[in-house]
Amino acid sequence: MRDPSLDALHLVHLGEFSLIDRIVARLGDAAARDILVPPGDDAAAWISPSGEIAVATIDALVEGTHFRRDTMTFADLGWRAVAANVSDLAAMGADPRYLLIAAMLGPGLTLAEIDALAEGIAEGCRAHGVRVAGGDIVRAATTGLTIAAYASVPASRPLLRRDAARAGDRVAVSGTPGAGAAGLALVDAGRAGEPEGAPLLRAHRRPEARVALGRAAAEAGVLSGIDISDGLLQDLGHIAERSHVGIEVAAAQLPLHPAAVTLLGEQAALDLALGGGEDFELALAGDGGTLAGLDTPDVPVTLIGRCVEEHPGEVVVWLADGQPYEPPRRGYDQARDRGTIAGR
Amino acid sequence: MRDPSLDALHLVHLGEFSLIDRIVARLGDAAARDILVPPGDDAAAWISPSGEIAVATIDALVEGTHFRRDTMTFADLGWRAVAANVSDLAAMGADPRYLLIAAMLGPGLTLAEIDALAEGIAEGCRAHGVRVAGGDIVRAATTGLTIAAYASVPASRPLLRRDAARAGDRVAVSGTPGAGAAGLALVDAGRAGEPEGAPLLRAHRRPEARVALGRAAAEAGVLSGIDISDGLLQDLGHIAERSHVGIEVAAAQLPLHPAAVTLLGEQAALDLALGGGEDFELALAGDGGTLAGLDTPDVPVTLIGRCVEEHPGEVVVWLADGQPYEPPRRGYDQARDRGTIAGR
Repeated sequence: MRDPSLDALHLVHLGEFSLIDRIVARLGDAAARDILVPPGDDAAAWISPSGEIAVATIDALVEGTHFRRDTMTFADLGWRAVAANVSDLAAMGADPRYLLIAAMLGPGLTLAEIDALAEGIAEGCRAHGVRVAGGDIVRAATTGLTIAAYASVPASRPLLRRDAARAGDRVAVSGTPGAGAAGLALVDAGRAGEPEGAPLLRAHRRPEARVALGRAAAEAGVLSGIDISDGLLQDLGHIAERSHVGIEVAAAQLPLHPAAVTLLGEQAALDLALGGGEDFELALAGDGGTLAGLDTPDVPVTLIGRCVEEHPGEVVVWLADGQPYEPPRRGYDQARDRGTIAGR
Repeated sequence: MRDPSLDALHLVHLGEFSLIDRIVARLGDAAARDILVPPGDDAAAWISPSGEIAVATIDALVEGTHFRRDTMTFADLGWRAVAANVSDLAAMGADPRYLLIAAMLGPGLTLAEIDALAEGIAEGCRAHGVRVAGGDIVRAATTGLTIAAYASVPASRPLLRRDAARAGDRVAVSGTPGAGAAGLALVDAGRAGEPEGAPLLRAHRRPEARVALGRAAAEAGVLSGIDISDGLLQDLGHIAERSHVGIEVAAAQLPLHPAAVTLLGEQAALDLALGGGEDFELALAGDGGTLAGLDTPDVPVTLIGRCVEEHPGEVVVWLADGQPYEPPRRGYDQARDRGTIAGR
């Protein structure tokens, strides 16, 4: 008899994180559970034979799932793919050094588009201080880019981990969450030409990963961090779950982008900040004074909440009037959602 | 006016290697040309801050281009994807340690198939002494696996490079080239059930990368090597081109698999050995006595030719009667061929 849990329909309802757990379980002893940072964080980390820490991550961006040609150029896609991978290393407090890039070329892709992709990758590399060490090119039915990124970190520097937050920690976020998703919303609404939207479109098409902030946070003794590319609440949820703490977020403290508020309204800007995804900002948990000390004019760092002993694994948003708030979505699930949100 | 060189039609005729050169040129200073082994070899290598050598590679396997569901199971695919990546490190003389795996899940994929994939990956990892350190899972229109593999090598051990062969070197190959392609040919001919074909089907579905041989070769002072997964002649061509030598191969010396000769005939077995691709064997160039000393009962190493000053960049096959021989194909071009040969 056929096991009904094994059919494709069921798979659609199984989220990315359940699927990862299932695959890691099936891998058995072939999963490296005993390394410094095992599967399940933004990046993996292990001690190399000479004692330094190697940090590495892999991310796939696929047309239709992660990007659409109508919201960004191929040059933007190249930049964005670099930023997405570098962001996973920044979220560990590691300095990315080298990328390996596997390009899947879909049917109908032109040389001009491939050239633009390469140029966008090059611009993204220069902006983030990384270089391409190698790659692979294959034909496929779908266009996509998979990038693996590497860093090495001195053994003396702790990494920012999802499982290192403690009750009493303050929670901070960099930049203006929701800006990238607001840019995408403007494109989808046919409003890409509005001049006030330019910074939001740039946040969607040319996001910058927070490498310097990640390193500064790790060096300052912050122990827990994550990038919020899947959505602030969903990604804070990973910290809450893995650290066995509750997290409370004060909606009024969220640093919304002024252009998002002006163009889309405060409610929409808030919802995009909480669950829109799209941003390569960092969420950090640690001592409030230390977090506040990371704030700079270029990359603001704003205290937005705290870790508590109550409701471990859960993230609750509080409005200024003392009511809890649930946004329409908490983030993006790569294995379940499809084509609804572009590029993370 | 539209540049006719930039259309999709033109791209079809541009091979993988021209495309890589074009992309590397577009990357400009974002390509790491000054690292120990820059883009263009089986894997990239750089010196880490503590002085050891980091070696890393990325490979994408995509349904339709690199594998077909009718020639192997998802468990076989998982194994094969691991072997393909590990082989690129073996071809450098590096010991693979960790893999990062990005899985693209196509529509209709069932949980049972994903489970089988994970189990095949686990078996491939155990067989090759590597473990999975992390990964990514995404929905896509096409099913595929992209794997990045990492090794660290003591600074004292030279790597096997494509550009290190010298005129006077002998050329050797491991195993029985053509066995994997012969297994695929049997499947395509509806002859997968023939008992004598079992070792060939195994070579197609469960190939083993030559990790121990690659390390032994590097430790013995061999300087040049490559894996022949794209086809023996095409891959020897990379050594010839990058090392500025000619290579002469003696057809009569090729260690054809006896089952391939029996089931497909000597001519077909020879052609598959020369250009069938599919094998994760190593081709090595170096001192003849040193190469002969690498031969073991488990993994035979056979002298098949030599490097010469004449016809630099070209590989010529000689028959026993002194005539040159050109097989129907010299190998597989990932950017041009599509769906004709499975899994490399």
